[in-house]
Amino acid sequence: MTTSQVMTSHLSPTERVHTAFDRIAEVDRPEIWITLRSREDVLADAAAVQDRVAAGEDLPLAGVTVAVKDNVDVAGLPTTAACPEYAYTPELTAPAVARLVAKGAVVLGKTNLDQFATGLVGTRSPYGAVRSAWDDTRVSGGSSSGSAVAVALGIADIGIGTDTAGSGRVPAAFNGIVGIKATLGIIPAAGVVPACVDYDAVTVFAATLPAAASAAKVMAGPEATDPRSRTWPADVRLAARLQPRVAVPATDNLTALCPEYRAAFDATLADLTARGVATEPVDIAPLLEAARLLYDGAIVSERFAAVGQFLATNPAGADPTVADIVLAAQGPRAHELVADLDTLSHARNSATALLDGFDALLLPTTTQQPTLAEVAAEPLAINRTMGTYTNFCNLLDMAAVAVPGTPTADGAPFGVMFVVPAFADQVAIDLAATLLDVPSPEFVSESVELAVFGAHLRGQPLNFQLDDLGARFDSSVTTTDAYRLTALATTPPKPGLVRRGPGLGAPIVGEVFRVSPGGLGRFLAALPAPMALTSVELADGRTVVGFSCTHDAVGGAQDITEFGSWTAFLAAKNS
Amino acid sequence: MTTSQVMTSHLSPTERVHTAFDRIAEVDRPEIWITLRSREDVLADAAAVQDRVAAGEDLPLAGVTVAVKDNVDVAGLPTTAACPEYAYTPELTAPAVARLVAKGAVVLGKTNLDQFATGLVGTRSPYGAVRSAWDDTRVSGGSSSGSAVAVALGIADIGIGTDTAGSGRVPAAFNGIVGIKATLGIIPAAGVVPACVDYDAVTVFAATLPAAASAAKVMAGPEATDPRSRTWPADVRLAARLQPRVAVPATDNLTALCPEYRAAFDATLADLTARGVATEPVDIAPLLEAARLLYDGAIVSERFAAVGQFLATNPAGADPTVADIVLAAQGPRAHELVADLDTLSHARNSATALLDGFDALLLPTTTQQPTLAEVAAEPLAINRTMGTYTNFCNLLDMAAVAVPGTPTADGAPFGVMFVVPAFADQVAIDLAATLLDVPSPEFVSESVELAVFGAHLRGQPLNFQLDDLGARFDSSVTTTDAYRLTALATTPPKPGLVRRGPGLGAPIVGEVFRVSPGGLGRFLAALPAPMALTSVELADGRTVVGFSCTHDAVGGAQDITEFGSWTAFLAAKNS
Repeated sequence: MTTSQVMTSHLSPTERVHTAFDRIAEVDRPEIWITLRSREDVLADAAAVQDRVAAGEDLPLAGVTVAVKDNVDVAGLPTTAACPEYAYTPELTAPAVARLVAKGAVVLGKTNLDQFATGLVGTRSPYGAVRSAWDDTRVSGGSSSGSAVAVALGIADIGIGTDTAGSGRVPAAFNGIVGIKATLGIIPAAGVVPACVDYDAVTVFAATLPAAASAAKVMAGPEATDPRSRTWPADVRLAARLQPRVAVPATDNLTALCPEYRAAFDATLADLTARGVATEPVDIAPLLEAARLLYDGAIVSERFAAVGQFLATNPAGADPTVADIVLAAQGPRAHELVADLDTLSHARNSATALLDGFDALLLPTTTQQPTLAEVAAEPLAINRTMGTYTNFCNLLDMAAVAVPGTPTADGAPFGVMFVVPAFADQVAIDLAATLLDVPSPEFVSESVELAVFGAHLRGQPLNFQLDDLGARFDSSVTTTDAYRLTALATTPPKPGLVRRGPGLGAPIVGEVFRVSPGGLGRFLAALPAPMALTSVELADGRTVVGFSCTHDAVGGAQDITEFGSWTAFLAAKNS
Repeated sequence: MTTSQVMTSHLSPTERVHTAFDRIAEVDRPEIWITLRSREDVLADAAAVQDRVAAGEDLPLAGVTVAVKDNVDVAGLPTTAACPEYAYTPELTAPAVARLVAKGAVVLGKTNLDQFATGLVGTRSPYGAVRSAWDDTRVSGGSSSGSAVAVALGIADIGIGTDTAGSGRVPAAFNGIVGIKATLGIIPAAGVVPACVDYDAVTVFAATLPAAASAAKVMAGPEATDPRSRTWPADVRLAARLQPRVAVPATDNLTALCPEYRAAFDATLADLTARGVATEPVDIAPLLEAARLLYDGAIVSERFAAVGQFLATNPAGADPTVADIVLAAQGPRAHELVADLDTLSHARNSATALLDGFDALLLPTTTQQPTLAEVAAEPLAINRTMGTYTNFCNLLDMAAVAVPGTPTADGAPFGVMFVVPAFADQVAIDLAATLLDVPSPEFVSESVELAVFGAHLRGQPLNFQLDDLGARFDSSVTTTDAYRLTALATTPPKPGLVRRGPGLGAPIVGEVFRVSPGGLGRFLAALPAPMALTSVELADGRTVVGFSCTHDAVGGAQDITEFGSWTAFLAAKNS
């Protein structure tokens, strides 16, 4: 599935902008926005996109509408982080957003948030408490409240959030949408007002997983100006395993859930199991314990480092709850932070060991959806409970994809997350797609195409080797007519694809997988005689790495070109 | 060159131990040792090693004698970190040392150091000031003072040090030996009394580069118990470039050097240039500036986190200079540390940009070798100046190999370092070997063997592709007699190695390179038709990945098997 398949519409970019503004008027949720651009300004952007498309530019996101959390810079629009006194107008757009715009997206405006991205409720803002898209007596979740609700109400195609402790996932859960929090540094966080600069991720909301992943893919990639930018390792997995094993919390780990969510989580698990994914309870108490380091120790001083000096001036418009949290974070000593970071590094090691052998951990995204009144009455305790399952993720250098699970008995949205170690983002996306029963979108992009024609085909005996290396099925293909197929005398039986020249063979059916460079190197290193890898020409015009065999192996072997594929030959032989 | 070639001796393990203890008596430097084991105990270890060898175990380090800095645990021996009140007796040997012992090395004892590894002088110890191996009026350098002098005086084959700010390199410079400070985490630092736990490296001293690298290679590798343990990336470089570019400090960056060292550095540069290495001045002021973060900001709080609570009890035997530094490190706030770490992350980014396009940075290791009296008179200022060129290395996540440069005019040792980005350790070792004019030892071990027979041979037109991928020349080889060579109609001209079967061809001469898995995958992905990679049998019994070609390319091509190699064919053709 390509980006354009996911994101295009029968409407033109300018028509999409009109639709968005019509919807904004219709829903009457002014608290979503801190800065809503004028219809005219956005239309001008959309017209410019149309001109670029007309001039022949390839803009896969042409006319995609984007709502940007107001702690992420957009050139020319004020960045407030939900504190009016803090406002500045940046000259540069954050790279993550600029990459969307470069591909044709248009920014509708800047959205409300828990001030300085400190909160999971969506109510800590002088611009108003953001109400849930589904129940306006309940909170939207935060801190990326406005972006999530703008997506959930069908205003924006893409919402940009940030996530330090769950801010890009909790609002997804409450509003029935998808939130992708990639591995820290994969989507650059430059141009973002820091909450905890070492643990801040830029995130994506969308109504569907393919739409979210398409945007995230565009936003990902190294950024020279951002020292925390990271690249995919050369041996990154490009797919979940064919038979994934998913860890789920032990019963004792789920006591924080409200009864409605507890039942919905069980129903979601049953749904995942029904889709063929094996789940296994694991006591995740060590992860939940590590999460406490975010607020209960010295790491919270990250928040003072970010905006403490500003809040210490007692500015008008400061949210009192946020200010209390940030200003208290001035206290810890540096040596206490060193000690807590040491504890954290050991916790990260333990988490890796705990989840070893699992493809992902499935968790409820959050614990309950409180009413606005409940949060107003108790601004800290409920918020804290809500972060039970999200807080540890960035601390422990993990990635998470938040998607809708089975709704509650009364029809309210309920969200779950697939949580994976750093760089296993594609695994989480694939598992989320399995749960949602949608085609899994591609997120990780650096890969090599590898064409296979025999024992490595899906369902054939050596396909597990590709699975082990994290290879991703791309497509069924045929070669040009330059190739002949022979049945080699190997164990297990394999075909030899032999290039003879144009017209001297026949189109042979195979499959293309995508594999990391490191995976391909390891695959080749383990490849036994007489197999070889070379460049193979496909009927679709691609030239990819593909199988062949050595010259001596072909002599005397049966020519099976007439069957057109290894599987057809096997079927004929066994019939 | 194998480990055993570097480290073996005509002496048996027990004879080597006797030699070491005879030398200990001869040099009369009791201040080297904090705990010297008895000759009998070490002989018992050596005898056990001999028994293991006799029983058929492969122990490449059989009888290699090791001196271990006394902040690194050896089971059963007290660890003091040069503070008698701090002593404890560990049950486990630090993994880095245990790996040497597992390969047959024997530990002579625990060596003196600047207390708590805080210092570069080697005099901050209640166990006595360690004197230079070459001039007993001058300091040995520190903090790994005893281990370095034990190696320089020919007592121990290998000295184990640690290096946070230069402690594994400055003593190498003053004593005319080699010090390897690998990328942080490559050699596990578990079982070490932390100085700055996030920036501590375990290091190796030896008289020669091959000996040091052989030990470092054994010590390297992931360690499950150590959360800071790191593995080589799947696309790590396995060699310096054939035409390396080395950055050298601009003249303004060298003002900290004493005149004797300034002249020696110029002479060393001339030597390197004479060996065919291109050097280019770069203003490294940003690196030297970043180094100030180690002591002048909040990062020094790492030292309080390590041993501050202990030193706050005012223990007997505390070195007053060390105690002052550590106790002052209690002051900084955690948010100041967050800010300094942010500055550091940007400095790391700038350093990467500054050295982009260079293989390494060549630096003087230290600035001057003071006398014991000078250091006693001024315990802080001289020490600080001595760290000018070493302090930034671990902060900026770089690796360094310290080797002897051209001695000073009066014959004193002078040391230089090749400094490289994280994981480019092999590049630094290769360049150091070039300067020293010794065969370059292997340090990075994970690799795939790749046999080439034509345009990728050394000196041939496509060899640069292997160079680009960081491939390492391994050996000249010949195939079994199962192969025939043909001259393909490609541009540039290439041979096709075709397997026909045992006795149906002739031994064909080629070359084996070692390449990372990611490098091999990228190489294959870029390989044009009609070339292929398959498994190739060599006459030496190895089966490696090697070149072949597709079947259609051979038809009508000239059989050149009789020449025995592509280069012989080319020579004949051009003669």
